[in-house]
Amino acid sequence: MNMACQSSDELEVLVKEARTYTKNGKVADYIPALGKANPNDLSIAIYYPDGRCISAGDIEEKITLQSISKVISLALVLMDRGQDYVFDRVGMEPTGDPFNSIIKLETIAPGKPLNPMINAGALVVTHMIKGNSVEERFQRLLSFVREMINDPTITYNEEVARSEFETAYLNRALCYFIKQHNIIEEDVEQLMDLYTKQCAIEMNCLDLSRIGMVFAMDGVDPQSGKQIMPVDVARICKTFMVTCGMYNASGEHAIKIGVPAKSGVSGGIMGTVSGKYGIGIFGPALDEKGNSSGGIKLLELLSAKYKLSLF
Amino acid sequence: MNMACQSSDELEVLVKEARTYTKNGKVADYIPALGKANPNDLSIAIYYPDGRCISAGDIEEKITLQSISKVISLALVLMDRGQDYVFDRVGMEPTGDPFNSIIKLETIAPGKPLNPMINAGALVVTHMIKGNSVEERFQRLLSFVREMINDPTITYNEEVARSEFETAYLNRALCYFIKQHNIIEEDVEQLMDLYTKQCAIEMNCLDLSRIGMVFAMDGVDPQSGKQIMPVDVARICKTFMVTCGMYNASGEHAIKIGVPAKSGVSGGIMGTVSGKYGIGIFGPALDEKGNSSGGIKLLELLSAKYKLSLF
Amino acid sequence: MNMACQSSDELEVLVKEARTYTKNGKVADYIPALGKANPNDLSIAIYYPDGRCISAGDIEEKITLQSISKVISLALVLMDRGQDYVFDRVGMEPTGDPFNSIIKLETIAPGKPLNPMINAGALVVTHMIKGNSVEERFQRLLSFVREMINDPTITYNEEVARSEFETAYLNRALCYFIKQHNIIEEDVEQLMDLYTKQCAIEMNCLDLSRIGMVFAMDGVDPQSGKQIMPVDVARICKTFMVTCGMYNASGEHAIKIGVPAKSGVSGGIMGTVSGKYGIGIFGPALDEKGNSSGGIKLLELLSAKYKLSLF
Amino acid sequence: MNMACQSSDELEVLVKEARTYTKNGKVADYIPALGKANPNDLSIAIYYPDGRCISAGDIEEKITLQSISKVISLALVLMDRGQDYVFDRVGMEPTGDPFNSIIKLETIAPGKPLNPMINAGALVVTHMIKGNSVEERFQRLLSFVREMINDPTITYNEEVARSEFETAYLNRALCYFIKQHNIIEEDVEQLMDLYTKQCAIEMNCLDLSRIGMVFAMDGVDPQSGKQIMPVDVARICKTFMVTCGMYNASGEHAIKIGVPAKSGVSGGIMGTVSGKYGIGIFGPALDEKGNSSGGIKLLELLSAKYKLSLF
Repeated sequence: MNMACQSSDELEVLVKEARTYTKNGKVADYIPALGKANPNDLSIAIYYPDGRCISAGDIEEKITLQSISKVISLALVLMDRGQDYVFDRVGMEPTGDPFNSIIKLETIAPGKPLNPMINAGALVVTHMIKGNSVEERFQRLLSFVREMINDPTITYNEEVARSEFETAYLNRALCYFIKQHNIIEEDVEQLMDLYTKQCAIEMNCLDLSRIGMVFAMDGVDPQSGKQIMPVDVARICKTFMVTCGMYNASGEHAIKIGVPAKSGVSGGIMGTVSGKYGIGIFGPALDEKGNSSGGIKLLELLSAKYKLSLF
Repeated sequence: MNMACQSSDELEVLVKEARTYTKNGKVADYIPALGKANPNDLSIAIYYPDGRCISAGDIEEKITLQSISKVISLALVLMDRGQDYVFDRVGMEPTGDPFNSIIKLETIAPGKPLNPMINAGALVVTHMIKGNSVEERFQRLLSFVREMINDPTITYNEEVARSEFETAYLNRALCYFIKQHNIIEEDVEQLMDLYTKQCAIEMNCLDLSRIGMVFAMDGVDPQSGKQIMPVDVARICKTFMVTCGMYNASGEHAIKIGVPAKSGVSGGIMGTVSGKYGIGIFGPALDEKGNSSGGIKLLELLSAKYKLSLF
Repeated sequence: MNMACQSSDELEVLVKEARTYTKNGKVADYIPALGKANPNDLSIAIYYPDGRCISAGDIEEKITLQSISKVISLALVLMDRGQDYVFDRVGMEPTGDPFNSIIKLETIAPGKPLNPMINAGALVVTHMIKGNSVEERFQRLLSFVREMINDPTITYNEEVARSEFETAYLNRALCYFIKQHNIIEEDVEQLMDLYTKQCAIEMNCLDLSRIGMVFAMDGVDPQSGKQIMPVDVARICKTFMVTCGMYNASGEHAIKIGVPAKSGVSGGIMGTVSGKYGIGIFGPALDEKGNSSGGIKLLELLSAKYKLSLF
Repeated sequence: MNMACQSSDELEVLVKEARTYTKNGKVADYIPALGKANPNDLSIAIYYPDGRCISAGDIEEKITLQSISKVISLALVLMDRGQDYVFDRVGMEPTGDPFNSIIKLETIAPGKPLNPMINAGALVVTHMIKGNSVEERFQRLLSFVREMINDPTITYNEEVARSEFETAYLNRALCYFIKQHNIIEEDVEQLMDLYTKQCAIEMNCLDLSRIGMVFAMDGVDPQSGKQIMPVDVARICKTFMVTCGMYNASGEHAIKIGVPAKSGVSGGIMGTVSGKYGIGIFGPALDEKGNSSGGIKLLELLSAKYKLSLF
């Protein structure tokens, strides 16, 4: 369970400035549940290792992780399988293509996705989660998320999962393409079941900020003292957040912001400032590349003000 | 039922010369049933409008149509739906890419396959076959084939159909990609069921030559006098055979041979010489583009000897 | 010198109907000289082997050949070098990409253009014209054109050639890409000089129709009885006109019209009906693929009325 | 002038281990001057802000900058033109394609290179260097390099520059493609003159390490106290070194090493560890992506031993 978060005037000022950018965006509507979000929403939580938390906006609103889950499943799979096994099956290179592109699957190293942050790569990663059934694999992933947030009540949104399961034809195309090239052998419908549940894991942006904090602390939960994931795994995840975390705007994000972060089409962003704190942002209006319009701006203002860039 | 075919010394000479090219090819082995074929086989039948037939080699050996079926389903669908409906959903342009490429589906007119002879386009065509069930649609296609051959016993090879159904991941990838773009709405497994049965329709190269003869006669069966398909439909099919009938060697085939023809990975080729006769060829050793090595050579020799090029 | 052409009421009717389609097009304006053309113009000449000619519209207006020249230089180079030499350096496959695309140069057989009708391939063809200097090579090409038209006064438009020479950056990009891959070794500026002169060869659509007639007669000028090019060369050129002659609308053109034809961005179309006659069309308003809007329609009406399709 | 550098036993151990990886590489031979390098060479210099320097191997050997120059010209141009001007003309996204690929120039934002570290982008950057002539622009770039190294004798290798100027057809192809899209207006031969001189700037790996140190100190030369480039410019350059600095192995490099670095086909690598020191490496044997085989390994060992990863 998270403690209550303290509203921060400084953050409120930044949110106010960034909120004007939400007008440039549009709420994702291909999943009905996402389409109901208020495009003007923008909120942020910052979670410190000592348990303090500051915020602005309504940080209790629930969102589904969507692509943010890609970095979490990657961490789990790196622990489950080791780096060599994982990177034999998915690459490490940014692509410059949209997240759902299938072209590079055909032209470069047939069937091996270029990185774990594009859909094709994330599907291969989810495929590698260990367990004897979809249910067991999903519970292992969920336990991992709950541990990072320190909240055993975290679960997934069944309606969103079902809705995505029913309509995710492009992801099925990616799965079959990869299966043709023997990168995965699993039944595609089963993998889609697991993947859409993963994407539908639900939390608020306070929870997101706590996950970011665990990455910031190199995988340690400072309150329990437990090493939730090895340092190397945390480091690899943060690297991918920089090189590929913001779809095909990742390069621009690295230049302008320089904070490891992962976005999702629900409008969430999970950011991590090494050794300092985690960041959770929610702003459902998306720019044309699929990132939260207001959220990106907010992160940019925050990074400029507090000199958060890694570079 | 076909009459007996007369062995021709002239054809035997051409087959003998072309047979040396079978060594450059390899039997397709991704389907066990295809892999059992003898790579040195090469046979040809030529079917005249008056019912005469000449041949060389073992023309009774059964083969599955595979991609040759694409031109037959196209003819049926043009009758079922009309040109406007069909060409709203599949294009008319050759691609220069391999038959199973997915790239152009993403880069040009998203989801609309460039032509009906590549797999993506053929799947859209099969989707458009009218009928209330897979069974009914398949029976309509089969009846059409039987009518062209004038043989009610023609059927499909269940083992080949099942084997392809189980392993055709890439075709499923294409289906889902197209479905994402609303070009098809049908259940993918159902479409795959129909498509793999279509590809597994089985006949010998004498039968193939009779189909070629019906196209050569602009859709008329000269023995019954029946117009099996409208002239325009026959013309469109013959045009696609020239521009896209031999995978991404179609351009070379047009230059060197100039005879409308369609090949399949079983090693069959169905050719058509307008007003004159139909050609059926079987040679299972394939070149790297998927065409019968010996069959292509045989057609080239035939075209050169009898000046069959359209151009 | 051409005889006078007789105005034909039947052709006038077709031109009138097709002219309504000129409104869908736009005159090419990247070359000032082309931009001055009247978008409503549409004219046609049909040239018979016996020297008769019928026409509609103003068939005396001069146009530059532009891409129509690609098929003429190909014929010359096939005579200069032979098929093997030529097709070692340029392919035979349609591409499905726009005429000026550079992508396939990188992805398929690096540096070897897919066919001689796209710019990259046409540049390689022009490079292969024999002669000791640009001047000598151009004069050889011009002589060949003059011989086909039987008019020694045919020349090129210097202003258009200069204008294209100065602005053809994309063609230079293609040249250097090809040169990098050792397909050509010639100085690029020299090749561009020759190529832009080739494209600027000027004539009216009566002249165009006479060229089409020579192709229709398998390379023979029936008036002089001279075989201007071998039968095989004429056949190969006609084949490319069908598979690649109308840019990336060639497939559609083959289906709907079925007449070997080559278009240029000046709005000209040269067509050829084997054994019957040649066609010259001029209509400067272009569709989005670079073909004459009215001209294509006119050819379609003509083909439908007189059943000209090869297929 | 640089002080003498002290040989370091610790570095020698790392070099010895990394040197076994030089066998996996091959010296670039497309420029004769590069081809003469000894593939077994491997050396490193580390330059500290206080002027101390440690090294292993022969750090006095001269190499040309090649692609390492891309990050230096970028820094100069960001000062010359400002971020907005620069990033209107070149993007910020990694591509996943080889450094010399032309495909994305056609498919994404036509003519605007995806980032300044691929050749197409670097050519646009060099085009933006201010000055009234190639000579003046080159002298401005050279002065900037000399200032970072604090050595007024740094110059370029005329033989290498000339050799590249004569053979760089692919770069000319990129220039003309970009020029066609109005991203540059300069004469291509002039730009190639400037660009090939830039690539041929010559120094040893001690010099390289001093440049890395200036980036590490956010653009300040700690010995003179002078801010050679603004903090933001240094930060942007370091970001590109991480996301795109090692060709299409940049993602892997970020994961495995995590040190901003830029490589060149001469076998040089310039690395920068913020606030700590600069790194110069030379090892001419290249892997298949164009990075120094031994140099990459050496940097990986160094990063692991001293925990240098940013992430």
